[in-house]
Amino acid sequence: MNETLSSLFQEEIQVIGASRTDAGVHAYGNVAVFDTTARIPAEKIPYALNRRLPEDIRIQKAVQVADDFHPRRCESRKTYEYRILNTPFLIPQKRLYAHWTYYDLDVERMRRAAKCLIGEHDFKSFCSVNTQAESTVRTIYELDVCRKEDSPEEIVIRVTGNGFLYNMVRIIAGTLIEVGRGRLEPEDVMRMLEAKDRRAGGPTAPAKGLTLVGYHFVENEEITKKEI
Amino acid sequence: MNETLSSLFQEEIQVIGASRTDAGVHAYGNVAVFDTTARIPAEKIPYALNRRLPEDIRIQKAVQVADDFHPRRCESRKTYEYRILNTPFLIPQKRLYAHWTYYDLDVERMRRAAKCLIGEHDFKSFCSVNTQAESTVRTIYELDVCRKEDSPEEIVIRVTGNGFLYNMVRIIAGTLIEVGRGRLEPEDVMRMLEAKDRRAGGPTAPAKGLTLVGYHFVENEEITKKEI
Repeated sequence: MNETLSSLFQEEIQVIGASRTDAGVHAYGNVAVFDTTARIPAEKIPYALNRRLPEDIRIQKAVQVADDFHPRRCESRKTYEYRILNTPFLIPQKRLYAHWTYYDLDVERMRRAAKCLIGEHDFKSFCSVNTQAESTVRTIYELDVCRKEDSPEEIVIRVTGNGFLYNMVRIIAGTLIEVGRGRLEPEDVMRMLEAKDRRAGGPTAPAKGLTLVGYHFVENEEITKKEI
Repeated sequence: MNETLSSLFQEEIQVIGASRTDAGVHAYGNVAVFDTTARIPAEKIPYALNRRLPEDIRIQKAVQVADDFHPRRCESRKTYEYRILNTPFLIPQKRLYAHWTYYDLDVERMRRAAKCLIGEHDFKSFCSVNTQAESTVRTIYELDVCRKEDSPEEIVIRVTGNGFLYNMVRIIAGTLIEVGRGRLEPEDVMRMLEAKDRRAGGPTAPAKGLTLVGYHFVENEEITKKEI
């Protein structure tokens, strides 16, 4: 990305990304910021950049922001989706962006477990031990589990929070899957939170099911939606 | 496939496929038949076979059929879908199973053009010249164009017929795209059919947008749905 931008603008460009995702995780709502002295209008940048980028990366939109805007130093809300393909056999054309599991999952149970995680909590049990975060307290505003209306074999876990710890969404997904297949009770999730110990949490679900879908920046008490 | 089956059954197996698709075309409703002396119950075969197949091929179902059943020698109806991603920028996670075009397509015009193709016609103008087919007359029972309700940026051309000539669905799709972007009138399609000449037809749309979605075999005046 730095290289492509530097070659386009003919000057050294360093992007600041809003979110680093693990290897194998997808994103279609990521945000990155850079400084440039070039006078190309912001709305022209996606066209110029997309021509130079590989097919699996696409810039959807570019806007000029305040000079002091830093995507990781302002309050924001991130939304992730974890997709589960719940079928007896893997569906090949859906294998790249979903985690396949053949255990029949009970979405109602998963939803009950998910409710316990909404709000401000210490998510230490839902965070990989090698985290560098100082505090493990985060707020989840929304956490829902549902089957897609047009393809009920796909279960989507959608979560919005003010930030997520290392592997946190994947551990939440892994835990909800255990609840859905009956190996954990929805109420066990409360005990996991209280334990504040990674060993109490559920397994980390595979990266391929996870997609960062959106970013909201909170400015002056108002939420500005930057991307979908 | 022959190799995987032969190794599973420990005898030489030769499958007869119902449909050969061009390179790059997808299928999730293809049908294949084989003879075996093995006594494995048919419903167990998918489990055993899927374990040995690469992730991009999955057997959904196996059933025992009459000894003389030949998938290409009985009357059948095939359904194909051609998917178009109609957005200003390519959407990376949809790039593998759809043809991306940024020209704004008018679905209503495409639908009017599609109507001209329904019925029994000589589709010579919609068939690659290097066909080996004896007759170029085919019947299209259904040909519809619509935007997906949950993602209106995806246009799906769905066609059911008693058989399709070499590249026929891709040429129909390429022609409808030309109509949709205003380079052809819906009525031009009538003239194309009458010309009975490939040079009169529209361009061949790329293979990646095309998926064979289903097969129906017509038996004793009754249609048996074998796969979705």
